[in-house]
Amino acid sequence: MRLAARLLRNLSRPFSTTTIMHQLTPASLNPAVLNVEYAVRGELAIKAEDYRNKLKEEDHGLPFDRIISSNIGNPQQKGLDQPPITFVRQIAALMEYPALSTLAPSAFPPDVLARASELQHEIGSIGAYSHSQGVPFIRQNVAKFIAERDGFTQANPNKSYTDFSDPNAIFLTAGASSGVSLLLSMLIASQNDGILIPIPQYPLYTATIAQFQGKPIPYYLSSSTQAGWSTSVKDVREALQKAKDEGINPKALVVINPGNPTGSVLDRATMEDLVRVCEEHSLVLLADEVYQDNLHLRVKDPSVSFTSFKKVLHDLSSPASLISFHSTSKGVLGECGRRGGYFECTNISPEVLALIYKMVSVGLCPPLQGQIAVDTLVRPPQKGEESYSLWKEETDTIHKALAERTGVMSERLNKLEGVTCYPSPGALYLFPEITLSDKAVQTAKTKGKAPDAMYALELLDETGICVVPGSGFGQKQGVWHYRLTCLCPGVEEYVGKLEKFHKGWVERYGV
Amino acid sequence: MRLAARLLRNLSRPFSTTTIMHQLTPASLNPAVLNVEYAVRGELAIKAEDYRNKLKEEDHGLPFDRIISSNIGNPQQKGLDQPPITFVRQIAALMEYPALSTLAPSAFPPDVLARASELQHEIGSIGAYSHSQGVPFIRQNVAKFIAERDGFTQANPNKSYTDFSDPNAIFLTAGASSGVSLLLSMLIASQNDGILIPIPQYPLYTATIAQFQGKPIPYYLSSSTQAGWSTSVKDVREALQKAKDEGINPKALVVINPGNPTGSVLDRATMEDLVRVCEEHSLVLLADEVYQDNLHLRVKDPSVSFTSFKKVLHDLSSPASLISFHSTSKGVLGECGRRGGYFECTNISPEVLALIYKMVSVGLCPPLQGQIAVDTLVRPPQKGEESYSLWKEETDTIHKALAERTGVMSERLNKLEGVTCYPSPGALYLFPEITLSDKAVQTAKTKGKAPDAMYALELLDETGICVVPGSGFGQKQGVWHYRLTCLCPGVEEYVGKLEKFHKGWVERYGV
Repeated sequence: MRLAARLLRNLSRPFSTTTIMHQLTPASLNPAVLNVEYAVRGELAIKAEDYRNKLKEEDHGLPFDRIISSNIGNPQQKGLDQPPITFVRQIAALMEYPALSTLAPSAFPPDVLARASELQHEIGSIGAYSHSQGVPFIRQNVAKFIAERDGFTQANPNKSYTDFSDPNAIFLTAGASSGVSLLLSMLIASQNDGILIPIPQYPLYTATIAQFQGKPIPYYLSSSTQAGWSTSVKDVREALQKAKDEGINPKALVVINPGNPTGSVLDRATMEDLVRVCEEHSLVLLADEVYQDNLHLRVKDPSVSFTSFKKVLHDLSSPASLISFHSTSKGVLGECGRRGGYFECTNISPEVLALIYKMVSVGLCPPLQGQIAVDTLVRPPQKGEESYSLWKEETDTIHKALAERTGVMSERLNKLEGVTCYPSPGALYLFPEITLSDKAVQTAKTKGKAPDAMYALELLDETGICVVPGSGFGQKQGVWHYRLTCLCPGVEEYVGKLEKFHKGWVERYGV
Repeated sequence: MRLAARLLRNLSRPFSTTTIMHQLTPASLNPAVLNVEYAVRGELAIKAEDYRNKLKEEDHGLPFDRIISSNIGNPQQKGLDQPPITFVRQIAALMEYPALSTLAPSAFPPDVLARASELQHEIGSIGAYSHSQGVPFIRQNVAKFIAERDGFTQANPNKSYTDFSDPNAIFLTAGASSGVSLLLSMLIASQNDGILIPIPQYPLYTATIAQFQGKPIPYYLSSSTQAGWSTSVKDVREALQKAKDEGINPKALVVINPGNPTGSVLDRATMEDLVRVCEEHSLVLLADEVYQDNLHLRVKDPSVSFTSFKKVLHDLSSPASLISFHSTSKGVLGECGRRGGYFECTNISPEVLALIYKMVSVGLCPPLQGQIAVDTLVRPPQKGEESYSLWKEETDTIHKALAERTGVMSERLNKLEGVTCYPSPGALYLFPEITLSDKAVQTAKTKGKAPDAMYALELLDETGICVVPGSGFGQKQGVWHYRLTCLCPGVEEYVGKLEKFHKGWVERYGV
């Protein structure tokens, strides 16, 4: 009867995807979903998207003529337009359409043609699922890259790279995010399991911990106008102890190096101490090293090099379990859209590796064009190859632009009243601290917004610049920040807008 | 002291990734991980991979010279080598390296150049993250495709396609699997929540339900030598009632149509009844329609068309919540490696859509080459366009080969003693039932294998053909099957090997 009545009612109602009666409500969903927060693509980004659409109208009435997306490290997006590396794209195109090597051989340098041919031989069609862990040949190249990057190959000419990095312990991924998500889903065994995360942090971590119903164990980063952001191992130990006192079972320590959103680079002593903490407390070290190629000091001093946790573990002969993440989305490739990356497991048992394999096999395989981008990341053109000079020029230009912009922006923002912009030697971001007056805090409160979210919203409304409020990354209580990328061209005009807005804000709300 | 002793011990031990002491053991992981099973890439596939490596040795000593991967619907893999559709790859190559349109314009037909240019205008660089839900322009094209496929556009020339399919309710995904996984992770709110799944089923469902700690509620499919596999709505209702009696809270009904592994196609009346069940019990209908373009009868009769659950919902004016999945991996594209797909939500509230958006935004975006493949899937070349005739020829050839092979294999396998091969009007698989003697069952028991797994292992050992035992998909107790794909070229030789093996098996174990 109930059904009949309902059907009768339905007949008179036009079909619509927004019909009023819904079986599915937020309350009926996994409650963990409601707790997930991801500010990088949150309220601000959605509003920016609305403005972007409005700008297409002739009479848009907005006080700016374009949206500048400084909220996300997405170098190739419209408006930023960091050019892709030609070498990467030429290989990708040949993998898509191998006939081009005979249809248009002159469109590609010989080393690119040879490289694509080698990859085609190894992979076959990129339209096929690969090994779920990633193409074996590419994983070998990743292992070689790691062994060379960390100086093992050079120091041990008689040993194999596999003595340092095992291709079978490397998993290619759809960007670093999917690897982080998978590992956290496996590590969190109960709602009592905790993951140590830096605060401020990249919100992928809090979002994913919330999704899998673990407990975030925050350790706060320190900041100083001279040294920038730094990690205190004492604070990590205290956070760990406090969590244990509360009955939480810590499973892993997340370290982001170079830091996101802070742009800081860890010193060697701190890295060693963090490894010791992991050993003592049987924590898995999750090393987010996706910005390892974004070291601004290297532009002036090529001897500046990245120190990986893998190398530190090796030098210490540490038995600590380490999972380190890398990505094709950052660095100078900036190939976010193809979703490429890898993680390497060190001191992880074969049984656990087999379980990771099982889990990735359910998702079949990472995207092949992401995997191929990983190959170009770990095997750039070498001196003497035809593509080398263009590759060098393109990558140098990007490194230089990032370093210069970071310097200029940091210096100019730091001069503003009520703004402290800490040095950012790495990654793609600045994370200035803003002093907000009582008036601003009270106004935000009446609007139901975090004070730094109100700052970011007014910045967007006035200038079209989209940043992420510090509250999206976590911060100490009563301290406010925002994160902006250093990817915007036209830095003079851009910083000018930020300065003008901030001065107006100070006039409205005081400091 | 403990630490000091450990460090001392480590100093004398060479660094190794397989060091004996591991913090992380399977027992310390999320227990749900241990319960995940995914037979398509399980023991058989791993052994086949080992054989494949061994075959590279000159004196491999194996009784076959190649591995034939019939375990997975992966048409473009080595050895199967289904050619990619030229149109798809030409557009993909131009998206990777837009300069080709000037460097090698003659390598591409004018409609491909125009299409790529349009996509480049809409998307910008494919190296950028897109909208997390997928490129808006491509989602519009998906919505148009759905409205046309289901006859809405033709029947309602004065209405917009958005009256039928809302681009804002469409999410592009990295293959259908990632969408299914996301939705199940959201739907399963407690360990008491159940998901109705067909048995036999594609093991993605049991694997994902196990991962998110829900309860699978099996409903068994029926088989007959005349009609093939079918779904009994009575059985679905009984399974539902039984689950409720056991205190399980059913949340969703999974339907795979055309079926995997069964190859069956649902009739309209059954589809309507299934929709009613969802209405009555407030179940979300999860319609896995990734094989919608694999209808073998259409080769002989072009009027045979796919009926989607979307259309059934519309025709019934049903308020049932539906999420339907499609993929670029199957059909005739077979572009598994690029990980493309979409799901469309119907009768899902804006609040829930916003939550889905939030969850996908944490993963940033689906791979752009997967998204572009979706665009070519939903917008193939049209009559009059330069690419049309080649596209038609290529797709017809694939459809024809699949239909022929399915027919030949099915007929020949059905003739074998103790083998019943049911008709398979759709998808890419056959799922023959094998009668196994007591002797075979007992032998398998002593080896600790499922009897059909032993059958599949011996088949692999003897012929190099890799199939998936029916137990990986679920089946009624004491009934045995295996699944094999219809993707292998050289069907005569291939079926010959299967026949010879089966006859030997019967000699060894009886029927």
